[in-house]
Amino acid sequence: MPMKAMVYHGAGDIRFEERARPTLLAPTDAIVRMTKTTICGTDLGIWKGKNPEIETTAKARTGSFDGRILGHEGIGIVEEVGSAVTNFKKGDKVIISCVSRCGTCENCQKQLYAHCRNGGGWILGYMIDGTQAEYVRTPYADNSLYLLPEGLNEDVAVLLSDALPTAHEIGVQYGNVKPGDTIAIVGAGPVGMGCLLTAQLYSPSDIIVVDMDDNRLAMARELGATHTVNSGKEDAVARILSITQERGVDCAMEAVGLEATWDICQQIVKEGGHLANVGVHGTPVRFSLEKLWIKNLTITTGLVNANTTAMLMKTCCSGKLPMDKLATHHFKFDELEKAYDVFKHAADEKAMKVIVDL
Amino acid sequence: MPMKAMVYHGAGDIRFEERARPTLLAPTDAIVRMTKTTICGTDLGIWKGKNPEIETTAKARTGSFDGRILGHEGIGIVEEVGSAVTNFKKGDKVIISCVSRCGTCENCQKQLYAHCRNGGGWILGYMIDGTQAEYVRTPYADNSLYLLPEGLNEDVAVLLSDALPTAHEIGVQYGNVKPGDTIAIVGAGPVGMGCLLTAQLYSPSDIIVVDMDDNRLAMARELGATHTVNSGKEDAVARILSITQERGVDCAMEAVGLEATWDICQQIVKEGGHLANVGVHGTPVRFSLEKLWIKNLTITTGLVNANTTAMLMKTCCSGKLPMDKLATHHFKFDELEKAYDVFKHAADEKAMKVIVDL
Repeated sequence: MPMKAMVYHGAGDIRFEERARPTLLAPTDAIVRMTKTTICGTDLGIWKGKNPEIETTAKARTGSFDGRILGHEGIGIVEEVGSAVTNFKKGDKVIISCVSRCGTCENCQKQLYAHCRNGGGWILGYMIDGTQAEYVRTPYADNSLYLLPEGLNEDVAVLLSDALPTAHEIGVQYGNVKPGDTIAIVGAGPVGMGCLLTAQLYSPSDIIVVDMDDNRLAMARELGATHTVNSGKEDAVARILSITQERGVDCAMEAVGLEATWDICQQIVKEGGHLANVGVHGTPVRFSLEKLWIKNLTITTGLVNANTTAMLMKTCCSGKLPMDKLATHHFKFDELEKAYDVFKHAADEKAMKVIVDL
Repeated sequence: MPMKAMVYHGAGDIRFEERARPTLLAPTDAIVRMTKTTICGTDLGIWKGKNPEIETTAKARTGSFDGRILGHEGIGIVEEVGSAVTNFKKGDKVIISCVSRCGTCENCQKQLYAHCRNGGGWILGYMIDGTQAEYVRTPYADNSLYLLPEGLNEDVAVLLSDALPTAHEIGVQYGNVKPGDTIAIVGAGPVGMGCLLTAQLYSPSDIIVVDMDDNRLAMARELGATHTVNSGKEDAVARILSITQERGVDCAMEAVGLEATWDICQQIVKEGGHLANVGVHGTPVRFSLEKLWIKNLTITTGLVNANTTAMLMKTCCSGKLPMDKLATHHFKFDELEKAYDVFKHAADEKAMKVIVDL
């Protein structure tokens, strides 16, 4: 049976085309009919050619590469489950986690699901076909799907696949945000905004958001930033040191993935503080160890484990996380190419997260 | 009253000369008559000119710089105490911590003594005159001296000033060494050896020590290394990955302070692991965030807080830390220049820590 899907064929080449509908391959699989999906910065990175391992791994495994359906986020309705799936049945409305996990390997037993040793981790829309399609096969369904709670805004549910747990786990938790802290979030895209919202669960005193786009900074103030800094118009480091009486911040979160934003972060963290790198980087960065060896810093990196997804789902249901404001644009599925175009120029389009409805 | 001391006058210029004996400047000071001191890699760094801030800070403060007595380690006998000192009295045998602390500032209240906000931290032999002298003034004496326990080997006591707490806190504790872990220590100087010994308090399963000197590696095996790698003779990264079945280590400790050793560390830590930077770096390093953003790493830096000195002192007394093996060479105080010469060529001289007796 054919279906429509957004398929990556190589650097610079994605096509919205017909593909075969997925089928169960393992007893732990489910097939989900998508009802909403979205586009992530990572998808744009793949499109640009940042992930040649997609082709090389496919070729090493099967001898050829005939395209990969993009997408690792979304919600849908279970269409079919494998014989080993016990937590879900046909007709269940589910959130698809961007991280699949076996639940039994050494890393899964440490909640390091991002690095599942049995073929899980971030695989959807990367190592296997993803969610920008009418149907998707989700491996390890019992551990990797979440029953969509009644009453949860479905646009928000889409953000629970990746953006929100990434922000919370890799930004806020790794960054050790605590009541009374002064924190800085560098980059006010969807993940930076997720950091801003989930950080407030831990009651920091001052939240400084840095970006080059005034619209995004205005939204950040609406969502709880106490200070905003336009790094395109002023020296962000000088401004943040001035805001903090030259002390620096307890925690800086890098939510862009560029050397320039990394560099802001490494200059603003105070002694004993945390630098949580959330951004996906394409090149090495210069790390000022000649100044920072002495500062008792903790620097973290990471891919989301999605080990706090259930907690975040409950928190969204309780109204503590106004994530719906991040779903700025809506498209029909057959407008997926247009959605990509808008998301590619997100700042100009005043777009944050684009929701695609099937 | 004159005394002899090793004085830094500027890059490349240290002189063993006569200086005035120190006097109490604050009610919280003590004057200690030194009985043993030693030389740290940091002293060699100052000699080489790595710390021009010594002169610039002095000039900014007083308008001139007439030399700084080196040294931040050693033991001695209290000669005189200020009126506010209550824990020590004339005649007490004491260990001098390399970190002075007020005990009352924001950072001291967080046990971040390295960054004492009231003029403490690492100041001895750096911002004020140090321990390579017949007498030294120790600020905040109540918090910064330790009564030398009866029966503790006095050479080992000298290592409690800096080398051992640095290794334990910045290497082993920040590196989160746990029972069963596989760890790597890159650099087998006195601090690397301290990491090797204090790591064993936490029962890791495999301890890989990397150095370019076979004598040091032989000593590392004697002191508990399960594997040693001579990075001058073989590809350390390839060898460590082979030892760990291509998995990498749970914790890598950088105990040198060079880009090459940093680079080994960043390539051998497994997903979810720790990289504890202990070495003092003089230049920035290349940080491979393009590969490591995804690995869920924790990277730490730091100057010793000396917040575990009392624990380590008890552990040394209990015989659990055979630190005496690190005191390889002894000199009389009037041979201090010779001691510097030997320590400068420590690997060739098969020297680890040189103890200077007064």
